[in-house]
Amino acid sequence: MKILDQRLLPDQVKFITVKDAAGTAKATKDMALRGAPLIGCAAAFGFALELRRLKPRSAGDLEKIAGKTADLLKAARPTAVALFYAADRMEAFARKFAAAHPGKYAPAALKGLLSAVDKEARLVTTEDEKACLDMGNYGAALLPKNCVIMTHCNAGALATMGIGTAVGVITAAHKKGKIKHAYSCETRPYLQGARLTIWELMREGVPSELLTDNMAAHIIKTCGVNAIVVGADRIASNGDTANKIGTYGLAVIAKHHKVPFYVAAPTPTIDMKARDGDAIIIEERSCEEVTFVKGKRIAPKGVRVRHPAFDVTPAGLITALITEKGVISPVTRGNIIKNLAN
Amino acid sequence: MKILDQRLLPDQVKFITVKDAAGTAKATKDMALRGAPLIGCAAAFGFALELRRLKPRSAGDLEKIAGKTADLLKAARPTAVALFYAADRMEAFARKFAAAHPGKYAPAALKGLLSAVDKEARLVTTEDEKACLDMGNYGAALLPKNCVIMTHCNAGALATMGIGTAVGVITAAHKKGKIKHAYSCETRPYLQGARLTIWELMREGVPSELLTDNMAAHIIKTCGVNAIVVGADRIASNGDTANKIGTYGLAVIAKHHKVPFYVAAPTPTIDMKARDGDAIIIEERSCEEVTFVKGKRIAPKGVRVRHPAFDVTPAGLITALITEKGVISPVTRGNIIKNLAN
Repeated sequence: MKILDQRLLPDQVKFITVKDAAGTAKATKDMALRGAPLIGCAAAFGFALELRRLKPRSAGDLEKIAGKTADLLKAARPTAVALFYAADRMEAFARKFAAAHPGKYAPAALKGLLSAVDKEARLVTTEDEKACLDMGNYGAALLPKNCVIMTHCNAGALATMGIGTAVGVITAAHKKGKIKHAYSCETRPYLQGARLTIWELMREGVPSELLTDNMAAHIIKTCGVNAIVVGADRIASNGDTANKIGTYGLAVIAKHHKVPFYVAAPTPTIDMKARDGDAIIIEERSCEEVTFVKGKRIAPKGVRVRHPAFDVTPAGLITALITEKGVISPVTRGNIIKNLAN
Repeated sequence: MKILDQRLLPDQVKFITVKDAAGTAKATKDMALRGAPLIGCAAAFGFALELRRLKPRSAGDLEKIAGKTADLLKAARPTAVALFYAADRMEAFARKFAAAHPGKYAPAALKGLLSAVDKEARLVTTEDEKACLDMGNYGAALLPKNCVIMTHCNAGALATMGIGTAVGVITAAHKKGKIKHAYSCETRPYLQGARLTIWELMREGVPSELLTDNMAAHIIKTCGVNAIVVGADRIASNGDTANKIGTYGLAVIAKHHKVPFYVAAPTPTIDMKARDGDAIIIEERSCEEVTFVKGKRIAPKGVRVRHPAFDVTPAGLITALITEKGVISPVTRGNIIKNLAN
């Protein structure tokens, strides 16, 4: 599997070749690969690659490998639930296959298994692609004419297998002539907004400007921002949403300015097992990602640093959730359950 | 005059030698020298150096030079009013001297002039030093025991001729044993928090951590922050406060969490000619300061960028203004006038 190394963007377009689940997990952990839906799709293919490498000899062997592989993939990052969704789905698919095909696997049976698993992984991907298009349409319909929109982090084509979630909403609305201007917050410390989102917006011809995260409130107050849209890494069953660090502050600022705050994410992002935001584990990443920018030190040696990679925005601050199944507003557990049943 | 080049901190401690007003203005514009009170003190000495260089031959000559020099200094940066205060004060001092000493200046009269102007510049400095100490005491008294405090940008010793304004409050409270923990926001794009404030806090032995600006809301919500203190570049007569970009968003977030938000600034920061925040000019600085970090490009070529260097926090979001004359709360024009009369 070839993975675009997003750490090098926009300077270099370079691919990493990954041959198994461990390679996929490493690329995910090291952030060569990022974006909740994309992490899920990569995990599905990482799972398929691992079976191809280990060639299960029996149903029992397949079950053992499936469990271990899913665990290995899920350990890469703790917050994005799309990773868990995809790994669990592939494991369940493999176990179902094992149940239907007990005993030892002759070469023909193995070939059938690998082909079926590949197909399932591709299905995860095509579902994500379609979900992006649907979210784009649902989201674009929510936006006003001459919309001045802001987004945070990268929930674009690079974060998914399709047109993106939040950025997909912006580009879909742009194609309908509804976007007057888009602002991308740079998104420290990893600068996904500066490196990825603004690059995508420029490529799509969306009139856009980059700002540092701390300019958001001033720009919202003075530049007529009338919508904010972000993606999500995990949404609890009540609508509390974990997304890239900075999302929560932006939601608070949006509320103060009475600007609608939208979260666009496919339904695999919704974790019905998480009662609310408190149940979501927030990944704490390394200090060096804060104190070094492109290899250059920006803070004193010995400095103590916080680096929560995500924060939780309470459902009450979210105007609507946009999934591939429609718009959830107000954001409540009841409305989420209804949406999932669509 | 020797100026510590703050752009190189904390990596290098290097001084620039400045010999006249133009050099002072350039160091100010290029941000070798920054921090509202310090900019004012440097302008006072830049003014004195300029007279020393040009050696006025008469009262008329002195008046002409005084006007030109003040204008040159004031053109360096548009937002910090301490610069205008100091330049205007030095000009007024020179004009008063000219009125008291009409006619041509023999060497002895010139010597008297230069010595008097030096003394006035030193007075600007010692007043700032004392103001910092007083603000530190007033501010520390406002903070609770076991205070978990947050600050933005650098309003520390480096920004003043004394212990600092906002950081002065933190270090004064630390000396009284009141600070449990201090958080410094890194303050993009210029990273004054990462390069300067956290460095000052570490040197003073204050338990402290650095965070990216977009982590502030999450940290305030989850880490028991119970006070925020910042400096100011200009305060309008109604209390609306211009300070480093990001301050306004932080104030909005503080309000949402019911955390008191304090502004510490000496009275020369108050611009009674500005009716409210709308009358304050916000400096827009270069794109490159956003798109490059330590010489490394972090965003695509051709990207459009916003770079307002300051924002305005409405008086209603400020719990109290702390000046060297005491605490102003609630922040209203009437209470500001009373404080100035102290």
